[in-house]
Amino acid sequence: MSSPPIQIDVLIVGAGPVGLFQAFQLGLQELSVQILDAHHQIGGQCSALYPDKFIYDIPGFPRITAQQLVDQLQAQIEPFNFPIHLGQLVQSVQTLEQNQGFLVSTQSGLQFQTRCIIIAAGVGAFVHKELPLPELKELRSKQRQVLKALPEDAALGEKNLVIYGGDERAVQLSLEAAKLRSPKGSVTLVFRRERLEIDTTLQSLLDQEIARGNLAFKVAQITAIQENPSQGLSHLILIDTQGVQSTVACEYLLESLGLSPKLGPLLDWEIEMERKALKVNTETFCTSTPGIYAVGDINTYPGKRKLILSGFHEATLAAFAVAAQLRGGQSVPLEYTSASSRIHKLLGVKS
Amino acid sequence: MSSPPIQIDVLIVGAGPVGLFQAFQLGLQELSVQILDAHHQIGGQCSALYPDKFIYDIPGFPRITAQQLVDQLQAQIEPFNFPIHLGQLVQSVQTLEQNQGFLVSTQSGLQFQTRCIIIAAGVGAFVHKELPLPELKELRSKQRQVLKALPEDAALGEKNLVIYGGDERAVQLSLEAAKLRSPKGSVTLVFRRERLEIDTTLQSLLDQEIARGNLAFKVAQITAIQENPSQGLSHLILIDTQGVQSTVACEYLLESLGLSPKLGPLLDWEIEMERKALKVNTETFCTSTPGIYAVGDINTYPGKRKLILSGFHEATLAAFAVAAQLRGGQSVPLEYTSASSRIHKLLGVKS
Repeated sequence: MSSPPIQIDVLIVGAGPVGLFQAFQLGLQELSVQILDAHHQIGGQCSALYPDKFIYDIPGFPRITAQQLVDQLQAQIEPFNFPIHLGQLVQSVQTLEQNQGFLVSTQSGLQFQTRCIIIAAGVGAFVHKELPLPELKELRSKQRQVLKALPEDAALGEKNLVIYGGDERAVQLSLEAAKLRSPKGSVTLVFRRERLEIDTTLQSLLDQEIARGNLAFKVAQITAIQENPSQGLSHLILIDTQGVQSTVACEYLLESLGLSPKLGPLLDWEIEMERKALKVNTETFCTSTPGIYAVGDINTYPGKRKLILSGFHEATLAAFAVAAQLRGGQSVPLEYTSASSRIHKLLGVKS
Repeated sequence: MSSPPIQIDVLIVGAGPVGLFQAFQLGLQELSVQILDAHHQIGGQCSALYPDKFIYDIPGFPRITAQQLVDQLQAQIEPFNFPIHLGQLVQSVQTLEQNQGFLVSTQSGLQFQTRCIIIAAGVGAFVHKELPLPELKELRSKQRQVLKALPEDAALGEKNLVIYGGDERAVQLSLEAAKLRSPKGSVTLVFRRERLEIDTTLQSLLDQEIARGNLAFKVAQITAIQENPSQGLSHLILIDTQGVQSTVACEYLLESLGLSPKLGPLLDWEIEMERKALKVNTETFCTSTPGIYAVGDINTYPGKRKLILSGFHEATLAAFAVAAQLRGGQSVPLEYTSASSRIHKLLGVKS
């Protein structure tokens, strides 16, 4: 038998900056909270997509890097010690009868019985983009020849490797593979455009390796694959910008097309949506389903701007609304953190 | 002839944290902005009432003093170099014809012709509270015998001084006056309650001076005054908690009752209000008067909480709405400060 579900007041789905601040505000309301995130780190887009970029519109910070902001928010919620479950995708949400809240299950088998859910899932979990070629689907699922990173293969240098992509990561993977190459193998970088999305330093490194014959670069799209019974994937059929077709040997295909957001099972929750965002009211940030709230980039309302600072406000009003809901609709008074001895005690600071 | 009014896009009334961040957001929209505040310093309540207190719910700051927050916001708007006019109370607001905006005049004679006004006036300008005794009104207006601070009078020690109040400032003024006292004069601290709002250290200092006869403390209310033609105010009539009446000689009365917010002429602007707050819509933060917006503690809408972090969100959406209004209703696209080279140029940072 599986263990009984974890009983909590509020489950936050998403540990980006807004999800983290949501936890802080719920902590001030003395609620029991746990947090889920699909990624293996907290911080959402800030940490996954642009950790070192400066943000200039977080109030009170003339500038702060995205990762520093996440670190600061993590420090801010530290007094509450709320559990954060990483690498957890929500699989199902079941509404329980008699006002018992929701039963939430994740793909890895965690279960929560929670009175409220707050969705702070940004634009969804980030997944690697993939080539839109149906033939690749099965090969991809085997995770042997169509991959997102360099394969663990001692004989890699003797194989024919194709990397598809045009960003920094695609070029760096190509250079790395070129170093391992033996005369028997080949490394080919394929991208649909001549112009790669890299800086001039990396471009010169690439040009050098191409000149030395360690690496080939082809401007083309992959239109089909060839397989044979013994080795599986053996060749790719390319078509260049002039429409000329060519064939390239390929035992390993690496897709390096960047990340793209995916809402996943959220879309199946039957909550009222508008252009992939959850409609909320601006008093409570509740969705069309009572007990399910949405804050940050995933919600929409008249005037909505997808800004972190707006998410902070939304999370705050949502926390007051959740607290009122859990107290049977009784409105929750505002206490100032600068003056409230109750809050000082919660945060472990001197009054 | 007076100089012509200053022509701007937006006048912000109030230089508290929300007014300052409002300026930042309008700066990102490349609008011409000036700021007014009734006080002689920026920072609103944060700087005037609790500069050294820690605030714990500013997102990204596990803790920050109110004054530090103001300093940080000042640094954040520094690239825009917007003029801030301090010690300026709005005296009148006139709606101009043909969509020309508003003509705003201050009590000190500044004039602005502005296309929009954003009121970020908190709970109003802070003014010293006063005793509710009609007889004091005229004396107070003469600013000679009924005062808010110790008078500049070389012979002060020979006069009879009464200080009314129970807080730290009232007690400190009493101790200061007691030091100057000569045998001809007297210092009396009067408060309506036995228990003063001071810490034990200050209480012992006070008790010491009372024991030495340098100072008297009376628990009473002031019910009337006596004047005579030669010296003006001469005595106060007190009534103690038992209802017993007494008379105390008094040539100087100091009112030290703390600060209280006052909205002032704002109340006469004919904007729709609800319990002393301006009603706004949560899409634009516009009041019932087109072109006049309200953000921060002074506004109200369903779910409103008087929190600085909510003011930041309100100011941001107001900036987008103002920009759209000034562009003839055309919606303004969102640009991320982490990525927009236009914004980097405005802020003077490298892209």
